[in-house]
Amino acid sequence: MRKGIPNDPGRRDRLRAVALEFIAERGLRRFTVRGVAERAGVSPGSITYYFTDTDELIMSAFELLTEHAEPNFNVRLRAAGTRDEAIEVLIDYVIDPDDASQQEVRAVRELYSLGSRDPKAAALVRDRLEANARTALMLHFTEPCAHALDALIEGLWTQRSWNDEPLDPGMVRTAIHGLVTAFDSLEGTSA
Amino acid sequence: MRKGIPNDPGRRDRLRAVALEFIAERGLRRFTVRGVAERAGVSPGSITYYFTDTDELIMSAFELLTEHAEPNFNVRLRAAGTRDEAIEVLIDYVIDPDDASQQEVRAVRELYSLGSRDPKAAALVRDRLEANARTALMLHFTEPCAHALDALIEGLWTQRSWNDEPLDPGMVRTAIHGLVTAFDSLEGTSA
Repeated sequence: MRKGIPNDPGRRDRLRAVALEFIAERGLRRFTVRGVAERAGVSPGSITYYFTDTDELIMSAFELLTEHAEPNFNVRLRAAGTRDEAIEVLIDYVIDPDDASQQEVRAVRELYSLGSRDPKAAALVRDRLEANARTALMLHFTEPCAHALDALIEGLWTQRSWNDEPLDPGMVRTAIHGLVTAFDSLEGTSA
Repeated sequence: MRKGIPNDPGRRDRLRAVALEFIAERGLRRFTVRGVAERAGVSPGSITYYFTDTDELIMSAFELLTEHAEPNFNVRLRAAGTRDEAIEVLIDYVIDPDDASQQEVRAVRELYSLGSRDPKAAALVRDRLEANARTALMLHFTEPCAHALDALIEGLWTQRSWNDEPLDPGMVRTAIHGLVTAFDSLEGTSA
């Protein structure tokens, strides 16, 4: 490896995880290699051994995010045996946030910010986050319905993050059932 | 005013507008008073005359955003005479983006990023952006329906921003009608 130092994938992954945590907590605006080094208890030089520059460290942290983001969502959707079960998974997912998911919302928000002006970051959002969620939803719903459900869930998560009160479970239930029913009747008329 | 120099509200507003443009184009991560000064063709010192520090300039730019954000949306919703017209306004708004709205999406995204860790920025999102959209929607829809429509529209805007292709108008139409119908039947059963 570079400079003949043996590569340590475990250490590289730990640095990515620390960088991602730093991004979620403090935002890209405050992000520095030095800050990550301090938090990880290593020298800045040992970070530049694994990552060429700040941008590479940031993108690598976001790749980690897309590998782990929404695993509950996708895994639980895949585990749902019926469409009714899938609908319950969606409702639970939206109304029962945990601390980890709040941290994830903040990290995703930073990825969105970068993606607004960096095509590689935009591709991560589109080809990983969006594509994974869409694929999991399409196990149970048609493509346009999956698209609409994905949008609704994204918007509800956003709203929830700005408000201390939890979302109204009745509203969430009515909205998700409403979309599913609307796309079902569409299938009915076009069949 | 400070240092006895006459205050010029016009100049202050122009600096806010330039700062907002800078934030939308380059992101908070690249934001500096010097960068705004260069773009505005003034000295950094003349910015610090109007704004105590970088954070005040940023918050002031975001306040400008919330004063002007989504005017078409709210104005057009208020102008809609019937609920069917309001529904058409929503559909048009989601499927026909213009360049200004893309710039706005980027600026809002930066505000969201700041709002994730700054309570004043979070309050701007909640008490201005969200509250204004919700109030306009509630001219035509019940509160839970307005809530769900707001979430769906937010999510569709987000999806659209990551994809070159326009949204499928049929999907948008079905989704918006689906939510309205679902909350209507709720009213029916509870009445």
